[in-house]
Amino acid sequence: MPNQPISGNDLARFSGPQTFMRLPDVSSAQGLDVGFIGIPMDIGTSWRSGTRMGPKQLREQSAMIRPYNIQTGAAPFDALQCADIGDVAINTFSLSESIRIITDTYTSHLKHDFIPMTLGGDHTLTLPVLRAVAAKHGPVALIHVDAHADVNDEMFGERETHGTVFRRAYEEGLITANKVFQIGLRGTGYTADDFTEAAGWGFNQYLAPALWHKSLTPLAAEIKAAIGDQPCYITYDIDSLDPAYAPGTGTPEIGGLTTPQAMELIRGLRGLNIVGCDLVEVSPPYDPSGNTALTGANLMFEMLSILPGVPYR
Amino acid sequence: MPNQPISGNDLARFSGPQTFMRLPDVSSAQGLDVGFIGIPMDIGTSWRSGTRMGPKQLREQSAMIRPYNIQTGAAPFDALQCADIGDVAINTFSLSESIRIITDTYTSHLKHDFIPMTLGGDHTLTLPVLRAVAAKHGPVALIHVDAHADVNDEMFGERETHGTVFRRAYEEGLITANKVFQIGLRGTGYTADDFTEAAGWGFNQYLAPALWHKSLTPLAAEIKAAIGDQPCYITYDIDSLDPAYAPGTGTPEIGGLTTPQAMELIRGLRGLNIVGCDLVEVSPPYDPSGNTALTGANLMFEMLSILPGVPYR
Amino acid sequence: MPNQPISGNDLARFSGPQTFMRLPDVSSAQGLDVGFIGIPMDIGTSWRSGTRMGPKQLREQSAMIRPYNIQTGAAPFDALQCADIGDVAINTFSLSESIRIITDTYTSHLKHDFIPMTLGGDHTLTLPVLRAVAAKHGPVALIHVDAHADVNDEMFGERETHGTVFRRAYEEGLITANKVFQIGLRGTGYTADDFTEAAGWGFNQYLAPALWHKSLTPLAAEIKAAIGDQPCYITYDIDSLDPAYAPGTGTPEIGGLTTPQAMELIRGLRGLNIVGCDLVEVSPPYDPSGNTALTGANLMFEMLSILPGVPYR
Amino acid sequence: MPNQPISGNDLARFSGPQTFMRLPDVSSAQGLDVGFIGIPMDIGTSWRSGTRMGPKQLREQSAMIRPYNIQTGAAPFDALQCADIGDVAINTFSLSESIRIITDTYTSHLKHDFIPMTLGGDHTLTLPVLRAVAAKHGPVALIHVDAHADVNDEMFGERETHGTVFRRAYEEGLITANKVFQIGLRGTGYTADDFTEAAGWGFNQYLAPALWHKSLTPLAAEIKAAIGDQPCYITYDIDSLDPAYAPGTGTPEIGGLTTPQAMELIRGLRGLNIVGCDLVEVSPPYDPSGNTALTGANLMFEMLSILPGVPYR
Amino acid sequence: MPNQPISGNDLARFSGPQTFMRLPDVSSAQGLDVGFIGIPMDIGTSWRSGTRMGPKQLREQSAMIRPYNIQTGAAPFDALQCADIGDVAINTFSLSESIRIITDTYTSHLKHDFIPMTLGGDHTLTLPVLRAVAAKHGPVALIHVDAHADVNDEMFGERETHGTVFRRAYEEGLITANKVFQIGLRGTGYTADDFTEAAGWGFNQYLAPALWHKSLTPLAAEIKAAIGDQPCYITYDIDSLDPAYAPGTGTPEIGGLTTPQAMELIRGLRGLNIVGCDLVEVSPPYDPSGNTALTGANLMFEMLSILPGVPYR
Amino acid sequence: MPNQPISGNDLARFSGPQTFMRLPDVSSAQGLDVGFIGIPMDIGTSWRSGTRMGPKQLREQSAMIRPYNIQTGAAPFDALQCADIGDVAINTFSLSESIRIITDTYTSHLKHDFIPMTLGGDHTLTLPVLRAVAAKHGPVALIHVDAHADVNDEMFGERETHGTVFRRAYEEGLITANKVFQIGLRGTGYTADDFTEAAGWGFNQYLAPALWHKSLTPLAAEIKAAIGDQPCYITYDIDSLDPAYAPGTGTPEIGGLTTPQAMELIRGLRGLNIVGCDLVEVSPPYDPSGNTALTGANLMFEMLSILPGVPYR
Repeated sequence: MPNQPISGNDLARFSGPQTFMRLPDVSSAQGLDVGFIGIPMDIGTSWRSGTRMGPKQLREQSAMIRPYNIQTGAAPFDALQCADIGDVAINTFSLSESIRIITDTYTSHLKHDFIPMTLGGDHTLTLPVLRAVAAKHGPVALIHVDAHADVNDEMFGERETHGTVFRRAYEEGLITANKVFQIGLRGTGYTADDFTEAAGWGFNQYLAPALWHKSLTPLAAEIKAAIGDQPCYITYDIDSLDPAYAPGTGTPEIGGLTTPQAMELIRGLRGLNIVGCDLVEVSPPYDPSGNTALTGANLMFEMLSILPGVPYR
Repeated sequence: MPNQPISGNDLARFSGPQTFMRLPDVSSAQGLDVGFIGIPMDIGTSWRSGTRMGPKQLREQSAMIRPYNIQTGAAPFDALQCADIGDVAINTFSLSESIRIITDTYTSHLKHDFIPMTLGGDHTLTLPVLRAVAAKHGPVALIHVDAHADVNDEMFGERETHGTVFRRAYEEGLITANKVFQIGLRGTGYTADDFTEAAGWGFNQYLAPALWHKSLTPLAAEIKAAIGDQPCYITYDIDSLDPAYAPGTGTPEIGGLTTPQAMELIRGLRGLNIVGCDLVEVSPPYDPSGNTALTGANLMFEMLSILPGVPYR
Repeated sequence: MPNQPISGNDLARFSGPQTFMRLPDVSSAQGLDVGFIGIPMDIGTSWRSGTRMGPKQLREQSAMIRPYNIQTGAAPFDALQCADIGDVAINTFSLSESIRIITDTYTSHLKHDFIPMTLGGDHTLTLPVLRAVAAKHGPVALIHVDAHADVNDEMFGERETHGTVFRRAYEEGLITANKVFQIGLRGTGYTADDFTEAAGWGFNQYLAPALWHKSLTPLAAEIKAAIGDQPCYITYDIDSLDPAYAPGTGTPEIGGLTTPQAMELIRGLRGLNIVGCDLVEVSPPYDPSGNTALTGANLMFEMLSILPGVPYR
Repeated sequence: MPNQPISGNDLARFSGPQTFMRLPDVSSAQGLDVGFIGIPMDIGTSWRSGTRMGPKQLREQSAMIRPYNIQTGAAPFDALQCADIGDVAINTFSLSESIRIITDTYTSHLKHDFIPMTLGGDHTLTLPVLRAVAAKHGPVALIHVDAHADVNDEMFGERETHGTVFRRAYEEGLITANKVFQIGLRGTGYTADDFTEAAGWGFNQYLAPALWHKSLTPLAAEIKAAIGDQPCYITYDIDSLDPAYAPGTGTPEIGGLTTPQAMELIRGLRGLNIVGCDLVEVSPPYDPSGNTALTGANLMFEMLSILPGVPYR
Repeated sequence: MPNQPISGNDLARFSGPQTFMRLPDVSSAQGLDVGFIGIPMDIGTSWRSGTRMGPKQLREQSAMIRPYNIQTGAAPFDALQCADIGDVAINTFSLSESIRIITDTYTSHLKHDFIPMTLGGDHTLTLPVLRAVAAKHGPVALIHVDAHADVNDEMFGERETHGTVFRRAYEEGLITANKVFQIGLRGTGYTADDFTEAAGWGFNQYLAPALWHKSLTPLAAEIKAAIGDQPCYITYDIDSLDPAYAPGTGTPEIGGLTTPQAMELIRGLRGLNIVGCDLVEVSPPYDPSGNTALTGANLMFEMLSILPGVPYR
Repeated sequence: MPNQPISGNDLARFSGPQTFMRLPDVSSAQGLDVGFIGIPMDIGTSWRSGTRMGPKQLREQSAMIRPYNIQTGAAPFDALQCADIGDVAINTFSLSESIRIITDTYTSHLKHDFIPMTLGGDHTLTLPVLRAVAAKHGPVALIHVDAHADVNDEMFGERETHGTVFRRAYEEGLITANKVFQIGLRGTGYTADDFTEAAGWGFNQYLAPALWHKSLTPLAAEIKAAIGDQPCYITYDIDSLDPAYAPGTGTPEIGGLTTPQAMELIRGLRGLNIVGCDLVEVSPPYDPSGNTALTGANLMFEMLSILPGVPYR
């Protein structure tokens, strides 16, 4: 039987190792189906910082999650070998250097066949992760849940920040443009084509107002059909949620998704050929209660629950 | 005319006695229709503690509530004699001893014919309260609003904790199994039958996803019809609400109810033969703003507003 | 070209002047189309204080907002000359004196033809502002979004507090009673006619339960049709929102509006002849994260986006 | 035997009535030696508000205090009849009206021979309390522990605010100028004679730097000798303490007293003919942990411990 | 070379395993000189809870500590083999059961010759730890730094809680009474002999006022001389510190020690035959900044720095 | 008469512009004696981030400070022309780029003869500021108050971070080594020569334990004598203070200075030829109360009070 999270009946939940869901920590991805990896960084953020503490708090709050997804029947630990591979040893004084390190580290890990599930960290990290993922799997379909499109060309003259990720990914051919789905976009911008230029590349954009008051189950079905069996990556920015649901983040925008919508969306994607996921932009100093991280950890678990090979009881 | 809450026009709301809604405090239930009782405990919790401060903060926040329910027309203080009976003198070092004390205290109070409305405290308290209530009224119908079914057999070998309450209540015949309604269940579990075993006993379970995006008025009507005139107890766990609405609780679970849904549900139950209510699991250290307790206090007032004998203007 | 907010690409968002949206500060309304004015007061509040810090935190959080409303296409700074006129020099030890000062200050500013957008401050301020506004424009139609009707006759014998504003405005003929729209009313009261007396004057009241689970776009259309081209004032009390969305306020009431509803409502009012707006009751000490103020600042921007003369790209 | 605080061995400390030290609440001072009275106000403050919540939080935290002063041997409840008389029903919308109400209320209470111990509230309250106290006892000696001298002539044209108290008291002959001791003064001012003018009246001023690194026991002895047996009033502003020790206050000033110094000072005053005390300027929103209020409650207990008639075991 | 903490130059401090000082985690004490053990419990507390989260936050904050004690020259990791043994699997629903489990676990660990350094948790844990320690080493000398003597006979009829530890230890012969040193005692009590009875047994008590404004170096020397080479246990309750220095604890008492005093005391004990240490009563919900835990972690490091065998460079 | 801060009697302190002490904001240093400049950055920090919000909160809290230093008699605004020059437009995504921008900006400002007083921001900023200052004035004497010596050679291979500043400054000849005074050093390190190597260069180091329980007035006199009339720069890291006094910082170390000591030290330096000052490492997310920033702002005012040319009344 694969690794199991430590049960809350064996060791009190507020106790034990600070790994994701209290899984074993390992130093290599060898033998894993799924590996949780932290990337503790915030030097790519433009407003509030603090996401460097994100992986720590996501792991802490994940201790609340039990192994069986009672709402959907998913039992990921029945079949998948999961563990926590620890944190990437980024250079906290250099964004460009950290980006290089992340790609190297993921490239090395991806010599093994496993699905990396990344705990952020600011959204910049998705670019170097996608470089390693695309090197292995080719261009991927992308499900990008976020308040922001992150398709700026540059910020303060820098081309690689948390606001430019998906333009770079597009330019470098890491993603298949017409299989990119950006969900929850809103907030304010500088010009009318802040978003629409990316629509011109083929990106499918779903602004938040089009999603208000609605179940996202139909949208998930639509996306799933469009992607088919292409390798697919999910990048989940916690600020896609309304600040009521996720106050602890760096650039909150009002009028966002609810957690029921987030869960409908993820659950509806079951069946896709997912090759990687991340959950980014949890900033603990702005929610010391830990509830934002708890939300993030649960969304990680929902993504885990739809990975290929997960049995449903 | 019965007791009236001190008016905010007579004494500033941030002032005055720390009783529920600034009602008189009394030492006995004699002559009351409704008595508010605090049970300040958290030693039955499995994750975050702090609910021992719950009754205090619920009372503090209740000072905001005015006596007339403007949305529904309910005027409970026109007809019902209400007062605050204070706190149960639990033994904070022994859960089992506290459980015994609670049953004894309620049994003693219930020599008088009144409706106890309990301010928690962790959910363990509902078991000893039900023991006293059922001793007086026989098995009761149960409306249980919660993120968790609380039907474990044991936790760390203990049979009476905040996670085992309703299995014990079922086994002891305190509740009528097919008149048990568990609403808002979600979160994660250990096995597929964590919930379903209770369904086998006759419990009616409503998982959260079945309630998303919906008014709960129809559900309330359905429950009311099913219960009929059997004596009925409402136990309201604040964690039934989404953490966005109730961050200050011990075991928050995402994807929960909204406060409009909570109010629709309670309002729709008007007409039932309610013999007791509780509001549990408010943990002040996790919401120092007091808003979670304010929410809890308002839900108490909504439950008060539907008690038998409340006039509507 | 009119004044532009400092761009986040020129100066980091966490930097620069503490004016609304980092616009220039000016000492007079001369030459402006829109002027942002702070009224830092909380001595008119009846429960929690702290709104004296509201204007400061609203400006601080407004630094997150970019100039183009990507969801609606509004580009207010393409055409309107906007600036921040600073704070009214209230007398923080005397409510009555402060009320007089506010009217005087606004009367003086309104010698210039511009739209004042006020950052509160407790809701008392709307009365003296309306006095100045009505002196210039005659009685105005009023869109009043709030958890409370604020139509008490007096509080502790005082006739001008945050709970009596709209009765006074009605009595003084500052507003056209049948063109008053009160939206989001809820909470509790003292008597059955707390609200209904105002309905008798002609006020149109929309209680929160009638708005739950719904888009407010139809309501906005209805209001717009009813008001026609009469000069119109919008007063937005942040406590109209549910405490989940706006925890940092003085008298929160559960079961309120969501931010999507607030945005639908404001956006649907585009086309009205708006002559003034305010955003009141943000209380920073009860939300140190700043998210409530961020919400308030965004709603200010939404109101700015529907002012007469705003171009849409 | 006089009233005793409820013992923490009879009822858990986080439980029970919200009176000072869980003493009985009474409606009149009749028969009391000492009466605790709350004055919940903050409309006289010039920077941060929030002290309206002070009496509530002082009472809440006082539940930690046990009846015997183990460090000094004082056993106040062995001999003095103590109770909590509740809050003054101030008018929260009018500072001048509230000042009048406070004097009236205290005048009425002081028909009985007891010592009022006041829980504030902002420092303005000391003026109307002194008016009632001096009417009974004649001009009093004054021990005034504070970061600020509070001897402004006016603020925004108002003559009665938290910054003008002791100039008014001097002008009205409520205090004996050369028996006024101001301890802990510091911070910044407008002119060189901000303080020195009061020195000219006879006030004895002790600036904070003269007290750094020192025991205050000698100072207390000096003051005691100077006052002799004249009736004496102690007004303790929590901001006399360094913000490290009392962060939750409205106008903190660095470089203040430590709690050991505060206790040395109070303990050294034993033997004076104290006729009243107050503890003011605790602002709960700026210290949600409650530690500042805990400090204030303990200083109240220290003052209680030196009242005439307290036995020492 | 023994285990080394992960260097902040190899892996960013906000990253890596959540063990004490990022040392390796091991499952047994075999081969260790020093083992860090967490006991996450708060069910023995009488006022605020939350210490169940203490071990977690102590470990998190310990990541700030570098291996060399620059102030004293101590280099513990040059010679001592240190590791983190994880948490004791307490039964969070039963205090008595948890006490039994702790003794069993420590007895088992102490089959190996190592020094246990315990991260609490509430102070109750010291009793079962002492039982195991005394079983191995015989009665120990005790250095007990605390605001409270913890020598009650019972609380709510319970004989084993955080307030009765050292009476039980005395009765059971776990400690040598005249080699018990209680330092920092203060606060309030019930009777004059709350403390003095223990003095009668031989306990040496140092009340806080006797320590104010002083270096504790002389006191440490005195204690060291008195203890000689008897096996010695240090139990450090964080509430010995003033709440200014340690706000995040359950029963804070004003007028306490400063951190310089705490460090002087510990450093002065170098040379004793220390066989165990604990650091208890850090309650994270009352200091979300983590600074109290940071203080606790540093005091653990200071105790580590004086263990037998630590080299000084 | 030079610029005056807006008086709290003209405009409520919680109101008005967010400049330092509510001085005028200017775009150039021309005509100034003293210019306040913000450098909002945190990308050079190694543990907690958040100092990017420092300048904002320092300015906000500075509104509490009145123009006359009542304790010392200093009246800086009687003679010195002071203003706020705003923030440096750093590149928040690149530490090296920001360092370059800071030097350029200061070099440009320093074409005018004024004293720059810098509001940080993390301590990295002192290096580029010193480059500009030394280019104008030659090597400077340095008074460096800090918990850390900041003389690492590199961190993660980077040579310019908040931990390497003074080694670089030494290597580049920006400072006169034997006129460098490092005060308050403590905490932990990696090797015995972490500090001592710098002592070898001539740096004068004062570890915290040598300063405990003492006035720093004698130390200040000693430093003043040693420096003589050489141009001198003061860099004040808020973490030199104990975390009790300054909880809101990135790398707090226990056992630090008190605010009285900090004020004694600064006041004792009056008479030096100060050519620049900074106050760094205030991290607002770790002290939302603002008290740490209030402390920082007051220390800035103390440094202002000792600048050459300040009259004393």
